[in-house]
Amino acid sequence: MIGAIEAGGTKFVCAVADDSMNIVDRCTIPTTKPEETLPKCVEFFSAYAIERLGIGAFGPLDVIDNSNTYGTILNTPKKGWKNIDLISPFKDAFQIPVKVDTDVNAAGLGEYYDGHGKGKSSVLYITIGTGVGAGYILDGKPLKGFSHPEMGHILIRQRKEDTFEGNCPFHNTCLEGLVSGPAIKKRCGVEGKDLGKDHEVWGLVTDYIAQALTNYILILVPEVIIIGGGVSQQEHLFPIIRKKVKTYLNGYFDHPIFQTDLEDYIVYPKHGQNAGLLGSLFLAKEAKN
Amino acid sequence: MIGAIEAGGTKFVCAVADDSMNIVDRCTIPTTKPEETLPKCVEFFSAYAIERLGIGAFGPLDVIDNSNTYGTILNTPKKGWKNIDLISPFKDAFQIPVKVDTDVNAAGLGEYYDGHGKGKSSVLYITIGTGVGAGYILDGKPLKGFSHPEMGHILIRQRKEDTFEGNCPFHNTCLEGLVSGPAIKKRCGVEGKDLGKDHEVWGLVTDYIAQALTNYILILVPEVIIIGGGVSQQEHLFPIIRKKVKTYLNGYFDHPIFQTDLEDYIVYPKHGQNAGLLGSLFLAKEAKN
Repeated sequence: MIGAIEAGGTKFVCAVADDSMNIVDRCTIPTTKPEETLPKCVEFFSAYAIERLGIGAFGPLDVIDNSNTYGTILNTPKKGWKNIDLISPFKDAFQIPVKVDTDVNAAGLGEYYDGHGKGKSSVLYITIGTGVGAGYILDGKPLKGFSHPEMGHILIRQRKEDTFEGNCPFHNTCLEGLVSGPAIKKRCGVEGKDLGKDHEVWGLVTDYIAQALTNYILILVPEVIIIGGGVSQQEHLFPIIRKKVKTYLNGYFDHPIFQTDLEDYIVYPKHGQNAGLLGSLFLAKEAKN
Repeated sequence: MIGAIEAGGTKFVCAVADDSMNIVDRCTIPTTKPEETLPKCVEFFSAYAIERLGIGAFGPLDVIDNSNTYGTILNTPKKGWKNIDLISPFKDAFQIPVKVDTDVNAAGLGEYYDGHGKGKSSVLYITIGTGVGAGYILDGKPLKGFSHPEMGHILIRQRKEDTFEGNCPFHNTCLEGLVSGPAIKKRCGVEGKDLGKDHEVWGLVTDYIAQALTNYILILVPEVIIIGGGVSQQEHLFPIIRKKVKTYLNGYFDHPIFQTDLEDYIVYPKHGQNAGLLGSLFLAKEAKN
C-alpha cells in the first residue's frame, strides 16, 4: 500500500492505494492549523500499512532533495503554515520514506505517467485557480533549479484598454494578478463561474493566458500543455486560447504540432480535478529513505 | 584528439583539442554556401586524427537525438542553408561520431562544465547579438522538448513612451525584435557599439532584457545566468540589468541569491567570445555512434 496527500490551501485530500494505483480509501481534511490538520492526516493513514507517502503541496516549498529543510513550507502568506515541516509528522509516525513536491509538479507527474503526457518526454501542467502555477516534467523529472518554478508570476502585456490594477501583492499585473480566480472576482465583483460565457472579461483572460502559454512554449518547448484548476472548467475558453496562441506564435515553429488547431496540444487534465492526488501517488512510488 | 565547430551565420570556427581540452589548432571559415563552407571544414580536420566531433550551430536546427533529420538545419532565413545536414560531411569523411546542438546550448554546456556553472546543477546561457537565443542546462543536459528552445522571441512589455515598431519578422516587438543588434541599429541608425553609454536606448534595452530575465527566472529558476554575445561586451549594462531584475521580482523569491546585488548571478561568460567553441568541444566528448 502507498499513501498520497494533495495538500492545498483549503483542504488536504488523503488517499491510500494498492500497488496498481487503485485508490482504496480517501478522505478530505480542512486546512486549518498545521497542529490540527497534520495529525488528522496521520490518523487517517494509521489505519493502513502504507510503505511510502507522496505529498503534492501548495508552496512556496523546499523541494531540493539534499536541502536541510526539504519538505518545509517556506514564506507562505497562509497564516500558521510558514516553516512547517510536512515530512516529519509522517516519518515519525510510520518510519516510511516520504517524497514532497509542489502540487503542480505532482499533477504534471500524474499526467506524464498516466494521462496526456504518456509516451511523451515533456509535459507542462498549469493550474489556474486561486493561484496560478505550473510544473514542467522532462523525462519523468519535475524541472527544478534553485527552487521550484513560479511560472504564475511572469510578466505579460496588459491590453491598453484594460485599466484593472491587478491582484498580485508582489507584481500587481503579472499573470496571476490578472487571471487568477480572486483577480477575476476583484475585477468583476462575482466569481468567474457566475459570469456568462460572453462576458468581456473572458476576452482579456484568454489573451493573457495565451501570452503566458506562448512564452512557456518558447522557453520550455513542451510536447503537451495541460490546464487544470478552476478556469479549466470553463471549457469554452480552450478553443479561444488555442487560437490566440497560434496568433502570437505567428507560424514561428515549423513543427507538426502547429499545423493543427492545437486541440491535442492544449488540453484539459485527463484525470480532471484528481490530477494532483494521482500525481502524489506517483511521488509516493518514488519516495526513498 | 577531438574536434569542434562553432557554426555561426557569418563564420564557422573550427578547433582541434587534445583530451585535456587544450586547443592545438583552430581556423575560421566564412559562412558562404554549404557546398563551399563544409568541405573547407572537412579539409581543416583532415590534417588530424580526430575521434569525435561536436558542432554548436545556428538554428533552427533538429537537435532531437532519435529524429531522422538529427543535425539538419531547419527553416532558416539564411539563404542556401535550409535543410542542410551538418553531420554527413564529417561522418562520411572521418567515420566518427558527431554530436550537434544549438550554439547557445553548446555555450551553456561549456559554462556548466568549465565556467560560471561549475558545481551548479542549472545554468542559463543567453546570447544577445545578431539574434537573441538561450540554452538551459540542467544536470549536464540541455533542455529540449519538441525542439530546442526559442527564448529570444518571448513577448515582453514595450514601454508606453517607446514607439519603435520592432525588428522581428514574426513578432515585431518580441525580445529579439527590440534588443538584438540589428534592432538597435534600425532604431538608432548606428550600431550599439558606436552609441555613447548614456544614450537613452540603453534604458529601454536594459528594461526589456530585465523583463526577459525575470520571466526566465520564474520559469527556469536557474542557479546562474550568463549573458554572452555583442551586448554583453557593453559591460556598463550589467549593473543596470541586475537592479531592474530585482525591481521586477520585487522580493518574491526568498532565496539567498536575491539577498545580493546579483553580481555573481547575472554574469559575463567566463570564456568570453570562446564560450561556444569550448562548449562544442564538450559536445564532441559526448558524441556517440
